[in-house]
Order: sequence, then C-alpha cells, then structure tokens
Amino acid sequence: MKVGFIGLGSMGSGMARNLIKAGHNLVVFNRTRSKAEELRPLGAIVAANPGEAASGVDALFTMLADDHALEDCIFGPGRALESLAAGAVHIGASTISVALSRRLAAAHREKKQHYIAAPVFGRPEAAAAAKLFVIAAGPHEQIDRCKVLFDAIGQKTFILGEDAAAANVVKLTGNFLITTVLESMAESFALVQKSDVEPQKFLDIMTATLFGAPVYQNYGAMIAKQQFQPVGFKLPLGLKDNRLVLELGEQTAVPLPMASLIRDRFLAAMAQGLSESDWSAIARISFRSAGLEKV
Amino acid sequence: MKVGFIGLGSMGSGMARNLIKAGHNLVVFNRTRSKAEELRPLGAIVAANPGEAASGVDALFTMLADDHALEDCIFGPGRALESLAAGAVHIGASTISVALSRRLAAAHREKKQHYIAAPVFGRPEAAAAAKLFVIAAGPHEQIDRCKVLFDAIGQKTFILGEDAAAANVVKLTGNFLITTVLESMAESFALVQKSDVEPQKFLDIMTATLFGAPVYQNYGAMIAKQQFQPVGFKLPLGLKDNRLVLELGEQTAVPLPMASLIRDRFLAAMAQGLSESDWSAIARISFRSAGLEKV
Amino acid sequence: MKVGFIGLGSMGSGMARNLIKAGHNLVVFNRTRSKAEELRPLGAIVAANPGEAASGVDALFTMLADDHALEDCIFGPGRALESLAAGAVHIGASTISVALSRRLAAAHREKKQHYIAAPVFGRPEAAAAAKLFVIAAGPHEQIDRCKVLFDAIGQKTFILGEDAAAANVVKLTGNFLITTVLESMAESFALVQKSDVEPQKFLDIMTATLFGAPVYQNYGAMIAKQQFQPVGFKLPLGLKDNRLVLELGEQTAVPLPMASLIRDRFLAAMAQGLSESDWSAIARISFRSAGLEKV
Amino acid sequence: MKVGFIGLGSMGSGMARNLIKAGHNLVVFNRTRSKAEELRPLGAIVAANPGEAASGVDALFTMLADDHALEDCIFGPGRALESLAAGAVHIGASTISVALSRRLAAAHREKKQHYIAAPVFGRPEAAAAAKLFVIAAGPHEQIDRCKVLFDAIGQKTFILGEDAAAANVVKLTGNFLITTVLESMAESFALVQKSDVEPQKFLDIMTATLFGAPVYQNYGAMIAKQQFQPVGFKLPLGLKDNRLVLELGEQTAVPLPMASLIRDRFLAAMAQGLSESDWSAIARISFRSAGLEKV
Repeated sequence: MKVGFIGLGSMGSGMARNLIKAGHNLVVFNRTRSKAEELRPLGAIVAANPGEAASGVDALFTMLADDHALEDCIFGPGRALESLAAGAVHIGASTISVALSRRLAAAHREKKQHYIAAPVFGRPEAAAAAKLFVIAAGPHEQIDRCKVLFDAIGQKTFILGEDAAAANVVKLTGNFLITTVLESMAESFALVQKSDVEPQKFLDIMTATLFGAPVYQNYGAMIAKQQFQPVGFKLPLGLKDNRLVLELGEQTAVPLPMASLIRDRFLAAMAQGLSESDWSAIARISFRSAGLEKV
Repeated sequence: MKVGFIGLGSMGSGMARNLIKAGHNLVVFNRTRSKAEELRPLGAIVAANPGEAASGVDALFTMLADDHALEDCIFGPGRALESLAAGAVHIGASTISVALSRRLAAAHREKKQHYIAAPVFGRPEAAAAAKLFVIAAGPHEQIDRCKVLFDAIGQKTFILGEDAAAANVVKLTGNFLITTVLESMAESFALVQKSDVEPQKFLDIMTATLFGAPVYQNYGAMIAKQQFQPVGFKLPLGLKDNRLVLELGEQTAVPLPMASLIRDRFLAAMAQGLSESDWSAIARISFRSAGLEKV
Repeated sequence: MKVGFIGLGSMGSGMARNLIKAGHNLVVFNRTRSKAEELRPLGAIVAANPGEAASGVDALFTMLADDHALEDCIFGPGRALESLAAGAVHIGASTISVALSRRLAAAHREKKQHYIAAPVFGRPEAAAAAKLFVIAAGPHEQIDRCKVLFDAIGQKTFILGEDAAAANVVKLTGNFLITTVLESMAESFALVQKSDVEPQKFLDIMTATLFGAPVYQNYGAMIAKQQFQPVGFKLPLGLKDNRLVLELGEQTAVPLPMASLIRDRFLAAMAQGLSESDWSAIARISFRSAGLEKV
Repeated sequence: MKVGFIGLGSMGSGMARNLIKAGHNLVVFNRTRSKAEELRPLGAIVAANPGEAASGVDALFTMLADDHALEDCIFGPGRALESLAAGAVHIGASTISVALSRRLAAAHREKKQHYIAAPVFGRPEAAAAAKLFVIAAGPHEQIDRCKVLFDAIGQKTFILGEDAAAANVVKLTGNFLITTVLESMAESFALVQKSDVEPQKFLDIMTATLFGAPVYQNYGAMIAKQQFQPVGFKLPLGLKDNRLVLELGEQTAVPLPMASLIRDRFLAAMAQGLSESDWSAIARISFRSAGLEKV
C-alpha cells in the first residue's frame, strides 16, 4: 500500500520503519526534517509538509505528541484533510482526546474519507520491534483493509467497533491504569523500605503471586531500583494523558480521585525539575515525601 | 508433626484440613465450637480453649481475624503463650499489625519458644485447594522445620529473613496493592462505561496486554460484571487491613495518599450498607459517585 | 460616563442597574434580549449586538459566564474589540481564565484601548445591593478613572497593580478558598451529626470563636440546615471555576490536592443530578457518602 | 474552690496560674516536676503523683498531651480515679478521643464522682491571658458549679449538654477545621506566588472580605510570611488530633477526604524533619511540592 506517515518521534520512527520493512511505500513527514531524512535511504519519500504526505496515499498514519500537533497537521489550508483523497483512510495512532477523535471522524466523513482511531500500547522498544498492541476502532471494512498495516507494526490488534472514539477511550483509560500502578508501587516501596524490607524483594513476591503482569514487572523494577531509565515516555506526556483522562471524566461526569491524585504527583514532579524524566519518575515524589530522597 | 490450630474461619478451616490431609496430628480450637467439631471426624482433637490447643504441640498455627482476637488467644492466664512448650513454634498466619508481630516475637523469645510470621495470600478457595502463597519470616532453622507444614497449605512459600515482622509488612503492603487495583478498575470501568465502551471489553484488552495478572483477571471480572460474589473476604476486614497499613505508614512516617483514598471508599461502603459484601464491593462507591447505581 | 454593559445575568443585571442609578448612561447587551429590555425603562439603550454595546462608550463592562462567552463577544468581526474606541477601557468583571485575561490585555493594547480586570466577590444579592467587593488590576490611571464605576457597584475596591491578570488570579484562588470551606464544613457536619452533635450547634460555636467570617456564617447555615437555597451561584459554574484553578495550577506547576478533591465532589454532584443546585450543594455528596442522605 | 491540676505544659501552666490568680487553692502535678515547682511561689501545693493531686479536691483539672498520658494519670493503683472523692468532679480539658471521654464518664459515674469534658480552643498565649474558649459538656449542675473555674481560664464558655463526649467531638472537629484552613491557605499561597501575586496581598484581600476570622488572620500571616513561629502547638500533636478525627470518622462511618489529605501532609512533614515545628508548618509541604522551597 501507499502510506503517508506524519510524526517520526521515538514511537513513529519505529512504526514507519516496520511499515517499510513490510513492503509498503512510505511518504513521510516530520516537523524536524532530519528525522524524515533518516528514512530516505530505506526507500521513503520525504514530504515537505503534512499535505504532501497525505496526497495520493491509500492510508495516512499520524503519530503526534498531542491534540494541538495533530490538529495542526490535519486542519487548515494545505494540510492533510485537504489533500487526502476521497476513499483514503486516516489512521490516527496518536494518544489524543476523545473530543478530537470525534471531530476527526466527522471531518473525514464529510470529505468522503475514512477514519480509524488506532492508538497503541508499548514503549519505543516495542515500536522498534513491531511488538505494539494496536487498539483499533472505525468502519469494519476499513479496519480489514488496514489489517496488514497493523500487523506490520504490532504483535496484536484489538478491534473495538465502528465508533472510532472508543479506541481513544480505551487508550486513555489504559494509560490511567498504568499510572495507578506507578503510584501504588511508589507508595508501597516507600512503605516497605522504611519498614526494613527491600523493595526488590517485595516486588519479587508480588510479581510471583498476584501481580505477574508486565506493567508490574517492568515499571516495578525501574521504581524499585530508582533507575528511571531509559526515558521511554517523557513525564510531561504523562501529564498530558492524565489531563485528557480528567477531561473525559469531566465530560462524562465521572469522579476519578486516583487520577486527581496522580495529577498532583505529575505537577509536583514538574515543579521539582523532573520534566525530562520518564513518567515513572513520579515515583520519586513518593520517595521525597517520605524523606527517602532529598530534593 | 503435632500441630495446634486456632481459628477455623473460612481461611483457617481449609488450611487445617490440608494439614490433616498431609498426615499431621491436629488439636484445633475455634471460638464458635461447631467449626472445630467439623474437623473431629477427620481425626482432629477439639480443644476447649486456646491454651489447650497450644499444649504439647510442636507447632501452633493461628489464623484469626485481627490483632484483638489474636492477643486474646495468646496473652493472659490459661492462654497459648503460657501453655506452649519451650522449643515449640508459633506460626502466626493472621493478617495482623507489624507492632503485634514484634510483640509476639519478643514474648515467645522470652519463653524460649519460637515465632514465625507466615501470613498468606489467597482467598478461601485457594485455602481449600492448598494453593495459598505463604510469606514466612523468622528463625531460619524454624522455617526449615516448618517447611513441610507450609507445603501442606500452599503452592509456594517465600522466605523473607529472620525478622518475623517483615512478613507482616509484605502481607499488609500486598493487600494495599490489591485495594489499589480494586479502586483503579472501579474508576476505569465507570469512565469507560459512561464513554460507551463495555467494561468487560476494556478489561479483556487490558488483561491481554499489560495487565495479565490474576488480581486484574479475577477481581476485574467481578467488578466489570458488578457481581461481588462469592464473599471471599468481607469488606470490614479490608477496612481493618487498610487501617493497619495506614498505621504502619504513620509509624514509619510514610504518606500513603492512595491508601487514604481507599480508606474513605471503605468507610463510604460501610456507611452505605455494604458491610456484608466482599471487599471488592468498594467499587460500587465509584459507580454510585458516577451516578451509575442508585443507593 | 457613557458605559457599555454586556452580560445581564443574575450578577450583571444588578451591577448595570446600580451604574444607571449612579447616573451613568448605559448601552446594554444580552444574548437573551428580554433581560436587556428590562433596563430600557430605567434609561438604558439596548444594543443589538456586542459591537454596538462597545461603540462610542468610555468604558465597556463585561460580565459573562465563562471564557467562551466572553471571547465570543470580544473577538471576531463586528464584535466589541473592533468597535471599542481607542482610549476607551474594557472592564472585565467575569470570572475567566488567567490566560484569557492576558490575551485580552494584549489585544486591547494593540488597539490602543485599555483593559482592566475587575472580577468581583459577592452573590446576586450583593450585586443588587451594590455591596460587591471589586478586585481591580490594570493601568493605574485607568483604574483611577473607573473608580467612580467601581464605587457604584461595590462596597470596596482592592487595587492590585498594573498586571490585569493578577486580579483574575486572586478571584480564582478566592473562589477556590470558598470551596474548601464548603467541603470542610460538609465533612465536619457529617461527622458531628453521626457523633450525636447538632451541626447548627457546632457551627454556632465555630463562628463565635475562630471562624467568625461571612463565608462560614452564610454558607455554614445553608449546609447545616441542608437548605441549598437560594441558588446564588450554580453548581456547574463552581465546577468551571474549579477547572480554571486547576488549569492555573497546571500552568504554574502547583499541585492543589484540595482543589482536586473538590473537583471530584463537583463531578459527583453533576452525575447525581445536582446541576441546577447552588454550588454549596456539593456538601450533599459528603452527606450521601456518609449514608446520611439517600440518592 | 480546692482544685487539683494535672499537666503543666504550655497550655496547662497558663490555665493553672489563672486559677490561682482567681483565688482558688491549687494542688498541682506534672511529670517533669520543675514545671510544678514554678507554681509553688504563687501558692500552689506540689503533689508527688496524680493520685495526690486528686485527693481531697473539689475539682480536678487534667490538661495532658494525649489519651495515653491521661489514662496513665487516671487509671490504675494510686492514680486519680482512686483518690478523687465521691461528689468531686473531674474536668477533662485535654484533647482526647471520644472513646476515652466515654470511658471516663462511665468510670467516674461508677465511683459516684462527676465528669465534665471541657476541652479548650486557643494557643498558649490565649491560655496565659485567660482568653481561651471552653467547650463544656456534662451534668448541668456540675457545669454550673464549675462555671467560676471556666471563667477564670477563658473568655467564654460554650455548654453542649449532658453527654460529655459531645465536647470532645466539637473540639476534635474544630481542630480538623483549623487544619483545613492551614492546608487551603498553603495551596492558595503557593498558587498565587507562582502566578506573580504576593501571598500577603492575597491574604489581605481575603481577610478584608469573606474570610475575616482569626484563624485566617493569624495562621494566614504565619504562612504567608513563612514564619512558623512561635511554636504554639507542635506538629506531632496536630498529627495526633488528626488521627483522633480519623478514628472518630471510622467509628461513625464518615469518610473524611480532607482529613485524609491532611494526614498525609502531617506525615510528609514528619518524614521531612519538621517534627519540632508549629503545626502550621504543614504548609511547607505545599511549598516544597510546588518547588518553592528546597528540602
């Protein structure tokens, strides 16, 4: 397939490479052009702007940092919505608001284009290794048609139904669940450590019994060792996703006290200079609160 | 071995049966005598009081509801501490405070008895099926000696070191972690449901990706279906364990905002008539807050 | 002075009347025209649109529900920014975001107009009685010039400096402080009531000793009697102001756990059907949580 | 009257002096005897133990740090309960649990003694100046009889009824209300400061409008200036009272999310080395969280 790809950050870059590897023809665009140029030797065409990346393709992937960046690429003169052909499909892989996903679905429908929301779970390593989990929602026939693309970037695709926004609901809520694990482990480790039990020992028992899941194993090890490396997902992006969850909670009138609590952890982390850290570093706020780490 | 067993509730009863099944000679005591009588046909001797259950045994198991119940069986004239032989070992399997565990360690030491803290993870079904996880801490040689007993009741034993209280720290903190999962799923399900995504669908995706652990699978299904049956662990016991965690946090000066949040959920559940429910029913407070369930 | 006035809701209506009473010539606009027509017999000219209300006046008051409503009146073709004369002053009395206040300051400056942020404290009764507190910030000479207007609507004006947005910071933070009082009294009354002390008795003692301030006396009485009447300030407006406070907290990296807690109270109130109530009705969530009121 | 007085800390010392000043004959006891000796030159008799201080008096005041200290003075051989005469009255001025107050009422009744709970509001300066507020509950005729004593130590006495524990409910809940003010101001000041508004300016406006109450004026000034002096009430005592409020909430099934939040502030303050500070220093946790103060 002829595929446009906008957004070649740490996630998008791996995804685009895997699409090329799978034999698709890519036209890529990235605001910082050098990231796009890196893909030229692999056979990608480098577009000069979002509109060019959308022009003449069967499918257009977008993988951008937030609502604003995506809106900027899609809407307005010379942007992707204008140049995408009727019948082509926009695959929105970014973690964006449910509201924007709804707006995109409507805008593409009006242009007789298609829209699939297909956010992904997985960190940059998973994107590079084509091990992402894809959460797709949108018109069935379009999802069928794009199955080959999802297979190229992920280990498994979950299909949610015709309402694209449902995929964004799942992605945002899933990210919220991850943050509850970060926070709950941080508090637990602070407690066991000050009670003379090694966090790693506690973690080993938990993951060997009731908590034997990747999110506990991987993030648990980072937090137990207090080594918040590598920076797979920057803390301000975590704050952004938290904000999107809280906004969804407000729109649907759902109180989310845990998300509120985690919001304050993220803000404390920002205020205390952790904005370049991995989002798991919100655990340091629990440690600092407990006097286990000086600021 | 000759084993005393005090406390034949939904957990203790299964554990005692499995000890008998493994060939040990049991002397059992329960405040409500009928529970003890049920074990007589299996070969157990029924003691008239805690002191009798401790008298002449190699090891004394206790599996009681709370600190108060355990103190009542151990301390005071005619109680277990008095009648347990020097050299015998008390295996405390109850979920009790770290402070009481320390007090027990000291009291038994003074009597030249031994003390192992060996709280367990698992619900009554697991106790009946000898599938518990045992978290043991205490003198190494005693743990070695009791290994055969742990093997009779559980699927795996984790050994933590010489300081008995460490096992209680792990148990309490583990229970806290479970409650964070209950609450985080409750909030998540309320959010997805009011965003037109089926909770079960969301859960299926989560457990198939990052959250593939028993605690999410089992409790997740109960909460997604809003069927808080069977009552494996009553809500007031959850509140009690939450209190013990918060007390430990106070003694060690560790702020635990998630535990505080969950405390208020438990209290709301109590105030709203859920005191006979399984502790997972604290999820109903999230649903009620979000207007998804009328009181 | 010749004064334009946009926004004749329960607050603006009283303010406009008091300006007329003080002898100023008013041109008024309200989206629902009937509210504007009510002022015609008092001598006001009724404008057909925001632009007309701003045209030819010395000062333009705006008193609208939120950022969106204000932006809609100010920006765009035919709106107030376009028709306000150079040298004239916009007095923004609405409770809006700090960000919009900054944007207004810049937009007016560019047009050689002036901008004063002058949000007010007080409920509709106070607006009707010219008993508001005015918090004004902006260019000193403009504030001096408008002093006569502030005196017509309020009992006292506090002047904050040249940076208009500072007045909005104070107004939003002040509203946050009020909500902390609503919530703290709700929790306190639930606690004393279930401990067999009458809330009113408790309140009487508190206000006679350390808490002898209007916010405790007035709201306290409403909450103690569980009579959330009259509806001086609707609950969704309280939620909006809470959101603006949280946004300011995010922009400045200040965790605000109390504001987060109150956010969840507002959302629970919305979900439970209290959207037409006075904002003090968030207290009912505490009563319901404590089982003191059925939903 | 002949008055026993146990507990001559920063509060009790001022109260006892004022009782002497009013012409009463005092027998005083304090664990650290030097504090008691200071009153001898004023005419007080120094007792060697609590029992002696209670022996032969008409009324016995107790003003101790916590439940434990009070229980230690009252119960047990040679303690006050034993030596207090039938018909004499125990005036419990300490801030203690509702449960202990109930236990005291019952114990004294059995001994045909009387019991009044009479906790006070006010800091050491107020105690020294006889400006306390006394919250009294107990048998009416006893309160009438002791009125002269309350007048000697306070500026006003509030009488709550026959159930002594009600006074403790009010005292604890009142202290909780004070902590909500400490926390809400701390968050507010952090927010305005990072939004370029001086905390003191914000405070001046608040106290001149809706928040003109001593608790905002006095504590507000301390927090705005970040001068947590003098130490009128030590932080660990604030944590203790918070614990008593939370316990009361648990016993009556009342969720208290603000009290939970404040608990975590107190614990963070303890963990971060503020245990010798005035309780208003929990505000520093908000400042530290917001990056306004390095640890």
